[in-house]
Amino acid sequence: MAIGISDLSLPFTPMVVIELVSNTKEEAIQWLVKKIRDKKEQGGADLKVTAVSRGQELLDKSSPNLLLVGASKKRLLLGAEETGLVKECKDGSMRAFTCSNRGSFKMLTEDGCLFSIAECQYIIKHALDGLRARQEAMVPGYPLIRLYPGKSVLQRLEAQGLLTQVFPLHNKDDLKKLAEFWYGKLKPTYQPLDDIRHYFGEEIAMYFAFLQYFTLALFPKALVGLLYYLCAWEDYDKYVIFATLNLVWSTVFLEVWKRYSATLAYKWGTISRQQEFEEPRPAFHGVLGRNPVTGRTEPVYSNVQRSLKIYLVSMPFVVFSLYVSLCIMMVYFEMEFWMQSYSSRRPSPWSGLLLYMPGIVYATIIEIMNRINRFAAEVLTEWENHVLESTYQNHFIVKVLVFNFLNCFSSLFYIAFVMQDLKLLRQSLATLLITTQIVSQVIEAFLPYWLQTRNRQRIHKKRRDLPAYRRAPWLEQVELERSMLAYKGTFDDYQELFLLFGYVSFFSCVFPLAAFFAVLNNVTEMYTDAFKMCKDFKRPFLEPAANIGVWQLAFETMSVVALITNCALIGMSPPVRLAFRDAEADLILLVVAVEHALLALKFVLCLIIPDIPREIQTKLAKMEFEKLQALKQQRLQQARESLELNGG
Amino acid sequence: MAIGISDLSLPFTPMVVIELVSNTKEEAIQWLVKKIRDKKEQGGADLKVTAVSRGQELLDKSSPNLLLVGASKKRLLLGAEETGLVKECKDGSMRAFTCSNRGSFKMLTEDGCLFSIAECQYIIKHALDGLRARQEAMVPGYPLIRLYPGKSVLQRLEAQGLLTQVFPLHNKDDLKKLAEFWYGKLKPTYQPLDDIRHYFGEEIAMYFAFLQYFTLALFPKALVGLLYYLCAWEDYDKYVIFATLNLVWSTVFLEVWKRYSATLAYKWGTISRQQEFEEPRPAFHGVLGRNPVTGRTEPVYSNVQRSLKIYLVSMPFVVFSLYVSLCIMMVYFEMEFWMQSYSSRRPSPWSGLLLYMPGIVYATIIEIMNRINRFAAEVLTEWENHVLESTYQNHFIVKVLVFNFLNCFSSLFYIAFVMQDLKLLRQSLATLLITTQIVSQVIEAFLPYWLQTRNRQRIHKKRRDLPAYRRAPWLEQVELERSMLAYKGTFDDYQELFLLFGYVSFFSCVFPLAAFFAVLNNVTEMYTDAFKMCKDFKRPFLEPAANIGVWQLAFETMSVVALITNCALIGMSPPVRLAFRDAEADLILLVVAVEHALLALKFVLCLIIPDIPREIQTKLAKMEFEKLQALKQQRLQQARESLELNGG
Repeated sequence: MAIGISDLSLPFTPMVVIELVSNTKEEAIQWLVKKIRDKKEQGGADLKVTAVSRGQELLDKSSPNLLLVGASKKRLLLGAEETGLVKECKDGSMRAFTCSNRGSFKMLTEDGCLFSIAECQYIIKHALDGLRARQEAMVPGYPLIRLYPGKSVLQRLEAQGLLTQVFPLHNKDDLKKLAEFWYGKLKPTYQPLDDIRHYFGEEIAMYFAFLQYFTLALFPKALVGLLYYLCAWEDYDKYVIFATLNLVWSTVFLEVWKRYSATLAYKWGTISRQQEFEEPRPAFHGVLGRNPVTGRTEPVYSNVQRSLKIYLVSMPFVVFSLYVSLCIMMVYFEMEFWMQSYSSRRPSPWSGLLLYMPGIVYATIIEIMNRINRFAAEVLTEWENHVLESTYQNHFIVKVLVFNFLNCFSSLFYIAFVMQDLKLLRQSLATLLITTQIVSQVIEAFLPYWLQTRNRQRIHKKRRDLPAYRRAPWLEQVELERSMLAYKGTFDDYQELFLLFGYVSFFSCVFPLAAFFAVLNNVTEMYTDAFKMCKDFKRPFLEPAANIGVWQLAFETMSVVALITNCALIGMSPPVRLAFRDAEADLILLVVAVEHALLALKFVLCLIIPDIPREIQTKLAKMEFEKLQALKQQRLQQARESLELNGG
Repeated sequence: MAIGISDLSLPFTPMVVIELVSNTKEEAIQWLVKKIRDKKEQGGADLKVTAVSRGQELLDKSSPNLLLVGASKKRLLLGAEETGLVKECKDGSMRAFTCSNRGSFKMLTEDGCLFSIAECQYIIKHALDGLRARQEAMVPGYPLIRLYPGKSVLQRLEAQGLLTQVFPLHNKDDLKKLAEFWYGKLKPTYQPLDDIRHYFGEEIAMYFAFLQYFTLALFPKALVGLLYYLCAWEDYDKYVIFATLNLVWSTVFLEVWKRYSATLAYKWGTISRQQEFEEPRPAFHGVLGRNPVTGRTEPVYSNVQRSLKIYLVSMPFVVFSLYVSLCIMMVYFEMEFWMQSYSSRRPSPWSGLLLYMPGIVYATIIEIMNRINRFAAEVLTEWENHVLESTYQNHFIVKVLVFNFLNCFSSLFYIAFVMQDLKLLRQSLATLLITTQIVSQVIEAFLPYWLQTRNRQRIHKKRRDLPAYRRAPWLEQVELERSMLAYKGTFDDYQELFLLFGYVSFFSCVFPLAAFFAVLNNVTEMYTDAFKMCKDFKRPFLEPAANIGVWQLAFETMSVVALITNCALIGMSPPVRLAFRDAEADLILLVVAVEHALLALKFVLCLIIPDIPREIQTKLAKMEFEKLQALKQQRLQQARESLELNGG
């Protein structure tokens, strides 16, 4: 379990760092250290902890207080059982870890480690989060930071601004090895999923699994698209076939993914993992009351008030944003027309390029507006004051997606179905697709890398002026990672794929090369995402994930919309129109009938294709059966004892 | 816990009867009695049992062997914990029953009973089902009826035709009281749900709750429909409003029902009840192999073979049946035309009635074909040899519903959308609705009652010729109930409501009185259903049910179809057509756009309306939280002990 920064000057290998603001009072730090170190019976977390003494080792008085946290092997075993980690047994099955059966689990390394470092850090995080106030009425030294029995201490400190962050440390050796496999070699689309999961946890590994799956699934589509392009089959005649392909592809794509992700989730032990009881979010505030579920004294907040906020402020705001984005779209079309008439009036070598200008400007504005709205959605959802992180996430994601969806696709829908100009549609799609890709890659990976490099240089420079005893390498690492950007979760990454999925499946029959560009984008995305995970960000804590959550629903909604647009595009295609020259109404009725039949078929397919492969179902059922049997046995035992005692 | 048939001649109150064929060998009966009576440690069920000795008490040699089964109070307590019954506590919360906490549960009666008779019978049934072979290689006296360790004994006997039935006994006093409340008084639409649940169990109570809810929900619609009829607003002008009403009604109806049924399920303790592990169906057969889930030696059957049966035989058969029903429909239309031309050629006082004849004949044929197909579906699904009862049920229900749906509605769809004859549509709807109701009520309630009455008279007559000692009243009851029809589950009852829902929501804007007739039907249905449950059938075993299962999906599919038909009917209505006189294509596009928007709205509504009311959610979360806390505590304890023992 050697983490990079083992140093003789430290009594244990630190895994997690707690950062407190620089002017935290000494007594509060001492109190926190004692709480973390105390045995469980005394209300502590039973972890190892050391405070980095400031005068001696850290640079200056303005730098923060750092607590390094580790755990004994025994504590880790206990914690693994508490958190309900599911691990692989020697017989290949996945079971919830228990200390009493610890001999039956597979070792990860030869020296007898059962848990990866990410798991150890997760256990420590869980233990820290479980640190609750007992009799203390306030944080020592801060009479205003009140506590009440059962309140999470770290949450309180964070909400009050004393605690800046808690983050796990990178492990340089492991990271280097992972990076080599991941983006060091040129193996397009291959992702070392198990290694990613080992280092970053299931949620991030699940994202990369999806990215890889999505890219592979795009390959056949891209090939067909390329064929269309090369053979110049672009005269709209052939695209009925391509649209039909699209229909089948988007349905099958999502169904197969569900099965694949279930297989992964089984292999990673997250599918059968018992859900933890969800605690209120740290940022949640309210007047003190009794939580009706846990019975604990906790802040409570009226549901009516929250609903009012949602329906009277957030919803109107989203509608208003949509209106603004539609206005911008209309301005874009004005510009487009003006530019076209200008270039036709004064043809020049530049006019061809000028024609693309409005599209590029519009795509850039869309990208910027997406980000602005993302920020607004964050502020609004924060203000709605949701109790649970999961509801917060759902409300946030819905806001952002509704907006971004319209922002990105409204112009395309307008061109396709109002203007019915398929040539312009193709041109806009190409511009949007390519510009969005370039802009987002720059913002997402290279900007943070540049910031991170500057930061690293600054720290190196500072350290050079220090006396030798202050230059312990572990201290450098802690300080460097402390100032790295925090990884904000997989939201942005999924969203990019989500929009790309839309570009590829809505109209790609008009622009068959879309899938080809999407593949290109995804391959670069893999490298930049892998690069940014390894180089740009602090290590994130492991998050267990059994699927891609609400994104499955989002992608499925997309595929339903795609079915509708593709049917409509087929109906609008010149050859079909020609065949129904004098019977427009009949054509529309036919298209609608086909569309409804396909929707029904899609629905039936979703129902009859099992979400979990049979093999995994059997394994899960087996575990469930064993659990029920054990429970039954135990119940029977207890019931008998109780009946014997009380004489029935 | 007095059940009607306590008699001094019996050592205990029997609750469940096991019937074996008359020529069962004595040694097999003795073996079964011993197994039922044996302690659990010896592989028995630990129940009380007595065989009705034949020579002395029963009529003749050809009558079957009867075993009367009961249980001690202690056994019932133990069984309640084993089966995971959820009961109401003194503090009003619902918790899984445990013997050790039995003091905290509410008593049902003053003399300290915790369980209703239905629950006791359920516990006994569960214990009997759990009776498994140990070392026995065969049933004594029947070397061909092989057994293997773990095989359910009763299932084996049933599959081999030795065991005819296992049924719980009615309780005359309770039944009389229930009947009085239920259908004795004239309180339309009021159903004593808790009493029904108490006597018949949750599944049947849930059906009556749905019936009651459906009827109440139809009331406003019926009133509006009546208003339309009385004011003679039937000139198709006003029906845009009525169709819109239909749309809203069918969506809200199902959403509110989900919430209501969750409330009921909480109150009845089924919502939080842990699912039992599902055993293979008794009728399932195959070659002996190892069950991959339980590891038991069991018959196994290849999935490939089953899939082949489903896709190569069952599906073609259903398609063929659909084809036949379409042919019959076309014949009906031929008859209809012929009759119309005949009556217009020779007008007479009878011709008006004659016009309705084809409709009546067709409705009767539909009703008969529905029943034939139901039988075919049963045979086919049986032949598909499903392992679990639940998959069997799903395959069966889908077959029957697909067929019945087309059978009942194809003619109406044809009239509405192909012939576009709204007057004929109304006439057919009225004929179908009324004929179906009359036919089904007769088949469902009065036919069985007539059979049952005849049967009762026969037994009375026979008994009169017997010597007095043979006329113990309990024996008469057992013999009477033995020959009653078995209640085959709620399928037929739900199906009737399902079709009615279709009639009411698909086209009722053309025939506003439909809802009124539906209310009439439902009110009589309540009485006949209550009557048949109390008078016609053997008492069924309690079935726990937390919702209406697959019917929710069926009704929701219906409501989606209703949305589409209503949109189409609005688009076809004369005033709308008049407004879009020269732009048929625009009209169709508008209708389709509105329809899609409504479908999307429906989908969003389904997503955001929580299926379980907040209050119940909180209660459930509280229970879940307590369970998790207890589990955590227990785990921690175990983990520590194990670590201490092995020295970490």
